[in-house]
Amino acid sequence: MSSLLYTIEPIGAVHSALKRLEDAPMQGDEGAPEAWLELAPQTVQGLTGIKPGDELIVLTWLHLAQRDVLQVHPRGDPNRPLTGVFATRSPDRPNPIGLHRVSVLEVTENMLRVTPLEAIDGTPIIDIKPALAGNPSDR
Amino acid sequence: MSSLLYTIEPIGAVHSALKRLEDAPMQGDEGAPEAWLELAPQTVQGLTGIKPGDELIVLTWLHLAQRDVLQVHPRGDPNRPLTGVFATRSPDRPNPIGLHRVSVLEVTENMLRVTPLEAIDGTPIIDIKPALAGNPSDR
Repeated sequence: MSSLLYTIEPIGAVHSALKRLEDAPMQGDEGAPEAWLELAPQTVQGLTGIKPGDELIVLTWLHLAQRDVLQVHPRGDPNRPLTGVFATRSPDRPNPIGLHRVSVLEVTENMLRVTPLEAIDGTPIIDIKPALAGNPSDR
Repeated sequence: MSSLLYTIEPIGAVHSALKRLEDAPMQGDEGAPEAWLELAPQTVQGLTGIKPGDELIVLTWLHLAQRDVLQVHPRGDPNRPLTGVFATRSPDRPNPIGLHRVSVLEVTENMLRVTPLEAIDGTPIIDIKPALAGNPSDR
């Protein structure tokens, strides 16, 4: 088992009306608002080809999460049994990466307006990928 | 825009019959084999609750990727126009995180046998999440 560490440099940040964790829904499809994704100047070239209507997977670094948690009660419900974090979408986990499926509403030179996004204002963005269509030749 | 860096510590590694990048399909659903995911001793507790039949999203660190690439010809086809890496699934990108949807075939104390997985032998695993069902109350 490798014990190497790797370094993540955020490619941008979320701008959202959601300012506090306690205001954020648990998942995007539970009433999350639209948000702007601002790309850092050195990564803007990576947006070429993204257009309104695209379906993307946004990867974020959940910077307020606890990284020493391995088991949780799902959705914070004490009546549910302790479950491994890898069997849940808990933000608390060794590498707190958020996965968010969004639709693109608007594209500017260095920003994307997307919906829905449950990540709060200031959350670092670490990667963006297209949601895969069914046909590999269309990828 | 924050310029903080974050550190990823792999939670485990892939064991696969795919030993070389040139043998790996571009996506799991393009003929990838099954593979074993071995968890590091300090993260094994996070597997509690995962069982055969579960659908998971495995996040890997594509350790052989180039991190200074921002535009590529999709699927390596020079006839396709240069496209931003965030509009493609290219492994070459600033933070080379792989996303793989797999089914669980077998669970041991510290390993999961899953299929299909296009990541090569030795690829670091950085997170595992359940693929979300449609009904939030089931999450």
